[in-house]
Amino acid sequence: MSKPKVFEKPIGVKDYLPGAVAKLRHIERDVLTCMQSWGYEQIITPTMEYYDTVGVASSTSDQKLFKLLNNRGTTLVLRSDMTAPIARVVSSLLKQADFPQRLSYHSNVFRAIEEEAGREAEFFQTGVELVGDSSAEADAEVVALAIASLKAAGVERFKIAIGHVGFLNGLMEESLPGRKDAQEQLKGCLLGRDFVGYREQLRKLALEETVQQELEGVLRLRGGQEICEQALQLNVDEHARASISHLCEIWDVLKAYGVCEHVLIDLTMIGDFSYYTGMTFEGYAADLGFPVVSGGRYDNLLAQFGRPAPATGFALKTTRILELLGDNAENEIDRTLVVYNSDGRGEALVKAQELRAEGVNVVTERLNEASSVLDQARSLNQSSFTYKGVAYTALLSYDGNGIKGGSAT
Amino acid sequence: MSKPKVFEKPIGVKDYLPGAVAKLRHIERDVLTCMQSWGYEQIITPTMEYYDTVGVASSTSDQKLFKLLNNRGTTLVLRSDMTAPIARVVSSLLKQADFPQRLSYHSNVFRAIEEEAGREAEFFQTGVELVGDSSAEADAEVVALAIASLKAAGVERFKIAIGHVGFLNGLMEESLPGRKDAQEQLKGCLLGRDFVGYREQLRKLALEETVQQELEGVLRLRGGQEICEQALQLNVDEHARASISHLCEIWDVLKAYGVCEHVLIDLTMIGDFSYYTGMTFEGYAADLGFPVVSGGRYDNLLAQFGRPAPATGFALKTTRILELLGDNAENEIDRTLVVYNSDGRGEALVKAQELRAEGVNVVTERLNEASSVLDQARSLNQSSFTYKGVAYTALLSYDGNGIKGGSAT
Repeated sequence: MSKPKVFEKPIGVKDYLPGAVAKLRHIERDVLTCMQSWGYEQIITPTMEYYDTVGVASSTSDQKLFKLLNNRGTTLVLRSDMTAPIARVVSSLLKQADFPQRLSYHSNVFRAIEEEAGREAEFFQTGVELVGDSSAEADAEVVALAIASLKAAGVERFKIAIGHVGFLNGLMEESLPGRKDAQEQLKGCLLGRDFVGYREQLRKLALEETVQQELEGVLRLRGGQEICEQALQLNVDEHARASISHLCEIWDVLKAYGVCEHVLIDLTMIGDFSYYTGMTFEGYAADLGFPVVSGGRYDNLLAQFGRPAPATGFALKTTRILELLGDNAENEIDRTLVVYNSDGRGEALVKAQELRAEGVNVVTERLNEASSVLDQARSLNQSSFTYKGVAYTALLSYDGNGIKGGSAT
Repeated sequence: MSKPKVFEKPIGVKDYLPGAVAKLRHIERDVLTCMQSWGYEQIITPTMEYYDTVGVASSTSDQKLFKLLNNRGTTLVLRSDMTAPIARVVSSLLKQADFPQRLSYHSNVFRAIEEEAGREAEFFQTGVELVGDSSAEADAEVVALAIASLKAAGVERFKIAIGHVGFLNGLMEESLPGRKDAQEQLKGCLLGRDFVGYREQLRKLALEETVQQELEGVLRLRGGQEICEQALQLNVDEHARASISHLCEIWDVLKAYGVCEHVLIDLTMIGDFSYYTGMTFEGYAADLGFPVVSGGRYDNLLAQFGRPAPATGFALKTTRILELLGDNAENEIDRTLVVYNSDGRGEALVKAQELRAEGVNVVTERLNEASSVLDQARSLNQSSFTYKGVAYTALLSYDGNGIKGGSAT
């Protein structure tokens, strides 16, 4: 294949220029502060993990993992999410720490295949894991924190849809006993939000009228608390019934948090990770087709790392939220330009240091000896100006005879 | 080879637990703020770059690069520094932007081979690049900013040693004309700060007495401004002489910044990157054998990306600075525990939200219905206490009959 051009970067990855970085840093800071106010503390894990441990546990399909060999010939992966690495840490470095553990992160993650679909191969996630608590309170806490985090990030209009893996699994097993292939096909349609495809699949299965209706009825199980009541009327097994009861309890706690305006029950919801075992949720911003947050309960993952424990959590899709937010004026910062000639240098650089110590952003420049520092300064003497492509709000000029010209204090 | 154990992470990479993350974030924030106050704006580049572009330009030896294939079969590398990626961005996305450009970053970088030497395969750097200015003022600016950045990071006692690639190259060529191998051997010793080895190499070369003395005399060229004067007496070519003059000018500017107490001229200094073309420097903290910052001028790198321009910059070795700083009390944050039973839930969760909005860190927990919320709360009623391994400074308890117990306001 042809060599990449010198200035090219790999497909699917991005450069963030100062304006975008300022926005990203703002989201990162405000969301992590929000998470801290709920008792979640940050951890950082390595970019590379063993394929055989975190890679396999991550539930990202093999072809989506970026793999590389270390110099001992062991296969490593670039982390594809933070849930599996954190499960590893909770089971090793934090093995002695009591449950529940509340941990947060802001991190880049990697997914190989998506670069071909025009999607990103490296993107940022900001999230939490609540480990060691199986209660509905814990699930509600992470949902309520997801809502608080989206608000902290600056997302104003959004809805969180909550479902339960146990309900769909139970219903499918009751309606299509033992027919795993048919079950997987139907669940695949729901995962892709392809309701037309779901109905088509159902027709092809040529089921008994009542079963067919019940499975089609799932598509209408989206709304408020009343959905839980409706679901309990269905012909489902005990496990599915327990799932619905758990969802009802989560709803009650979310009511206590006063956040139900942002929440809907959606029993067609299926988590995008195979390790989910209970409640799952996704958040959608107004007018956007893709989720800005996803999360759920994963009670079997920790056991894979040798410390069985229930857990629940979520990840904001920070890179997408970044695209969602408009450019704000916050990026425009006050900057002072300090110019000088050789005679004014000492005074100028000392003044620059003083201003920086006061929190002022200062750029210094020695001007051409031949030109008059003062004349140049005067020609720039406005309340705001651009010099060599950079915006300034003040100017100070030094030529050895004290400060001259300039618009700053 | 044997499979890694489930809880293991690759050799040479680290997990950062909350206490370490708090310190790292503190350094990151304070140093980037310092850099911003000097007019430097942050950019973020991708973790993966093309091997043929940034990989080759990075001047990290091939065996130290982590390589992987994308799904088109093109070789990628994990970035080994930020200087080459920033040169790529300045030559592409920022191609239209005026010079000089002042850019900063905080980033993880990767070096493969070092994992075997017990060193880190992934570590953090915080640095700047000043692109498009070839003056001594520019070199002095990055040195002065390196000093300010070390102070911002909390490093108190340190020295910056400044040298010049042009001086050593000129002296070697004058003393050992055409003998590249001998020159490289000697420079290798200097790079490794192996002065004993340097003297041995010199003896083996069996040079003329005066040449031998002059080359050995290099080892004494370390000190203040007087070193520049001494170096000008040596039998060096015009290029080496110009290098010394440039260093003298940098010293003058640093004097104007008032930071010379932290600086020494060290003409045995050779930069650790092959792309350095002029002044190079390293900073050493008191009582530590390894540098905490390194930098220098690289006037030929940008041309490799199609936009020839002079440039200078540095990188703090942030991970090492982290190890240098002791644990500080800052990590201990005030946390309030809010406990409730089902009757007190609504009140408790609303109160928790209010406290968080006021900036208080709050953890909520529903207690066992059977136990008396109040009794539990009372038993914990102290000015500070630990509950399930987490430290708290206040407790609030709700059982539906108003707030009870507790030590908070």
